[in-house]
Amino acid sequence: MTVSASTPSSTDLTTESTRVLYDQLVVLLKDLSHIKGIASLLGWDQLVMMPKNALDARANQMSVLDAAIHDMETSPVLGALLEECERRRLGGQLSSELNPYEMANIRIALKAYREETLVPKDVVREIASATAKANSAWKEAREASDFSKFAPFLEEQVKLARQSVGYKLNGGVCEEARKINQKARAALGLSDKDECYKGYYQVLVDSFEPGFKDDRLQVLFADLKRDLIPLIAKIKAKNFQHENGFLKGDFDIKRQAEFSDKFPARMGFDMDAGRLDESTHPFCSNSHPTDVRLATRYALDNFQEGITSTIHEAGHALYEQGRNKEYIDTPVSSPLSVGIHESQSLFWERLVMLSKPFWTYTLPLLKEQFADRENLQAASLDQFYLAFNRVEPTLIRLEADEVTYSMHIILRYEIEKALVEGDIQVADVPALWNAKMKEYLGLDVTEDRLGCLQDIHWSIGIMGYFPTYTLGSIYSVQIYNHARESIPDLDENLAKGEFHVLKEWLNKNVHEKGSLHESGDDLILELTGKPLDSSLYVKYLTEKYTTIYDL
Amino acid sequence: MTVSASTPSSTDLTTESTRVLYDQLVVLLKDLSHIKGIASLLGWDQLVMMPKNALDARANQMSVLDAAIHDMETSPVLGALLEECERRRLGGQLSSELNPYEMANIRIALKAYREETLVPKDVVREIASATAKANSAWKEAREASDFSKFAPFLEEQVKLARQSVGYKLNGGVCEEARKINQKARAALGLSDKDECYKGYYQVLVDSFEPGFKDDRLQVLFADLKRDLIPLIAKIKAKNFQHENGFLKGDFDIKRQAEFSDKFPARMGFDMDAGRLDESTHPFCSNSHPTDVRLATRYALDNFQEGITSTIHEAGHALYEQGRNKEYIDTPVSSPLSVGIHESQSLFWERLVMLSKPFWTYTLPLLKEQFADRENLQAASLDQFYLAFNRVEPTLIRLEADEVTYSMHIILRYEIEKALVEGDIQVADVPALWNAKMKEYLGLDVTEDRLGCLQDIHWSIGIMGYFPTYTLGSIYSVQIYNHARESIPDLDENLAKGEFHVLKEWLNKNVHEKGSLHESGDDLILELTGKPLDSSLYVKYLTEKYTTIYDL
Repeated sequence: MTVSASTPSSTDLTTESTRVLYDQLVVLLKDLSHIKGIASLLGWDQLVMMPKNALDARANQMSVLDAAIHDMETSPVLGALLEECERRRLGGQLSSELNPYEMANIRIALKAYREETLVPKDVVREIASATAKANSAWKEAREASDFSKFAPFLEEQVKLARQSVGYKLNGGVCEEARKINQKARAALGLSDKDECYKGYYQVLVDSFEPGFKDDRLQVLFADLKRDLIPLIAKIKAKNFQHENGFLKGDFDIKRQAEFSDKFPARMGFDMDAGRLDESTHPFCSNSHPTDVRLATRYALDNFQEGITSTIHEAGHALYEQGRNKEYIDTPVSSPLSVGIHESQSLFWERLVMLSKPFWTYTLPLLKEQFADRENLQAASLDQFYLAFNRVEPTLIRLEADEVTYSMHIILRYEIEKALVEGDIQVADVPALWNAKMKEYLGLDVTEDRLGCLQDIHWSIGIMGYFPTYTLGSIYSVQIYNHARESIPDLDENLAKGEFHVLKEWLNKNVHEKGSLHESGDDLILELTGKPLDSSLYVKYLTEKYTTIYDL
Repeated sequence: MTVSASTPSSTDLTTESTRVLYDQLVVLLKDLSHIKGIASLLGWDQLVMMPKNALDARANQMSVLDAAIHDMETSPVLGALLEECERRRLGGQLSSELNPYEMANIRIALKAYREETLVPKDVVREIASATAKANSAWKEAREASDFSKFAPFLEEQVKLARQSVGYKLNGGVCEEARKINQKARAALGLSDKDECYKGYYQVLVDSFEPGFKDDRLQVLFADLKRDLIPLIAKIKAKNFQHENGFLKGDFDIKRQAEFSDKFPARMGFDMDAGRLDESTHPFCSNSHPTDVRLATRYALDNFQEGITSTIHEAGHALYEQGRNKEYIDTPVSSPLSVGIHESQSLFWERLVMLSKPFWTYTLPLLKEQFADRENLQAASLDQFYLAFNRVEPTLIRLEADEVTYSMHIILRYEIEKALVEGDIQVADVPALWNAKMKEYLGLDVTEDRLGCLQDIHWSIGIMGYFPTYTLGSIYSVQIYNHARESIPDLDENLAKGEFHVLKEWLNKNVHEKGSLHESGDDLILELTGKPLDSSLYVKYLTEKYTTIYDL
């Protein structure tokens, strides 16, 4: 560390050149990136390598590391540099001296610094402690399939979420949300002291999907409901299902791994800059673009699961490895948002892997790998394609297909937003959940366990995250459509297993852009020339499944 | 972190009770232990798991982590607590309020704090940079087998080592060494400003073997030379070698691993609190007693190498897992010294694994695992024992057997001590090395590559470490003799594969003692009732090899 993060610099920053300030800032930001990379590695290790008795020791290690990270994130030197840069930006001096990537670094770092310093340490600690309790309570409640056991803890989580959003709003993070809140207060004749949580949800979403506006979410999700609920109902009404028996039964894990493990490299994943392991929960870690580790899992009785999770995680991994090299280790090289990250995994998992060209290349290889499976040998490309693309409404989000998945998300979005903004009470959640499940997917929830208790998110204080899953789907289709226009022989490439063309296109158009744009909306507009449009996603699903289910 | 390490406490420490001070200290020491555990894990990951392109990123991560560790090690709050405790100790107030383990924590932490704060940051950085250069130069010099290419860098390493020793001596670390230095100055009529490096080597040894006196080393090593040089010459003069062909040739690595991997658990290594992997260089990492990871390697054409490295590292690992649970995460629970650590690995590698009782149990299992190897099947227990215990002087330390190994160490000890204390010049090293090799092992060094350029240690600034290897051997025999007296049916246990009795004895008598004692000498005295005695080591070797080689 050239600049010490703990002792304020004695120089008067106002007299330094912008280039000097920026260079000093970059040193601190890179150190922060390095130490966060360690936290990521510890997370990977815990899930993939760590012996089970080390759980407590690892928690202690993480806690000391988090404290060190927090000290660096909130260091007065960092703050002074950022505020001086911001002063110059507001004075119009920055843009002539720094390029847009450098400007973005200052924007992102300043926002992160303000967020870190705005919420008092006491509140952060209270949240951590409440979260641990809520998570235990959720596990017990789910076991007992009884939401009432979780309800008081969820109440507390909502309270704490509002509290930390309050600090951020008052500190000037999410100007848009503050305006919504003020407007609502004015309309209701409320003072600044009165309780009013309008606009709060957008601040929560902003942590995962920076700059994305809630009114945009509302429009996108309303369109999806309007168009997808009838499509799902139509498919259901056909009362017909495609044969997929040849994907079930005893698929030796080692042979599956041997087969699937080759795909990340085929997609362009650099095995010298990452690893592929197995773990209970598939994930992709991002210690550094030169050290991206994905973990997958295989199911003995279901071939589709393993290859799906490998390719999904490899999609994430390509984004991480594809970070902009010129701005390496600085914020602008980071992935733009959780939703854009998800778009990269869904891009490969759905738009590529669920396609006929992909299986034109892959099915012969699969038949070779499992030469002894007679029913698999007998399956034609068409049969295989249909089997992989079955639609079947289910109560469980994690088992949902690409047509019904969004309904699971929109249901959660509507409930968590209403909870945070005070439009419903915690006690209303189960009934509301069940009613929406009936309305959107035509299913009856018989137990809380299979309904409002199925996800971990709320129990660990994560609200505002769910929308990113469906934003990921919408982004992915619009990006894919654009890729098809840019690469006319895309299908031919895929059918020959030449996936690298697509990967390089994504590198250039998405990955290397990093966090240059202020929101996923902005990236899509710049990339495709059109605003983000959920009707493209609807069109993709409608056309594809009208054929598949002969609607 | 309950006590912040970066902001000085506002309370007046002198008015606090000793118990309160101690408890505050323990919080800081545990945090330090946790964050150092992270550094250890990163080290393990780099050698065992990390993809190759991540080398630079990992170096950056380690550098930021080291800086954070350094900040914690030198924090003013820690210093103030320790100095106040030391004030009370000198006033005779501590021993009535704290137990010996707690007293030891203060002693060790104070010493570490003083060492960390005494050497200026600039010098630390200079050492790091010079070391990187010296290491590259050493690699090139070894490649070219030309010591002169390395000489100027070694010169610099010696200079920097003296410099940092100087800071420590003047700051009151290693009182004994300071006295030696003052005495030498007085005898030579030198002032405090004149160059005089007598006593400096002891300070270097002290980093690895705390509290061990150089005059003790001199006595122990002189005795070894007196007795072992003739023993080695006698064995050589027999001009006879035991057959070991059945240990060579194509030993499938997977089958070796399957066989060897069971031994750590048999020895009492808890697989839920550690891992066993393969890596180029065998080692044992110590992120935490609940997370001890050993790495071994197998040679296709040499069965002895793999099992030896697994059992050696498992010996280290048992020490790490066996740390005192009551004082977990505090300095007193740490291994006492590098030499005692080595004694634990050599204990299992030599005294157990090179014994007939061990192979009484193990040889039938080995024959079962390699049922298709005819020459192995034909080998009797006696033949196997003789094959495993061949003595053969070699130029290379890492290939040396237990009889000749100490001579490699004593040679290095004599040279590095003379270098640091100014009795010889860097240019003298090759000739001196070669002369000693001839005198001790009767071998001619034909190339620097096979002589004074073979070890990495000096190139990375590590001087004073070599003696710990031989101290480990001496410790191990004295501890083993004592174990035999305490466990009368030890041989019968080993012959039945019941290694746990020995492991539990070591847990209680060595591992759980941690760093309670001020030196390895003290531990041995308390444990065996006698001072450390190299004649026991000589007796063990002489009796054993007089039989083996019919001397």
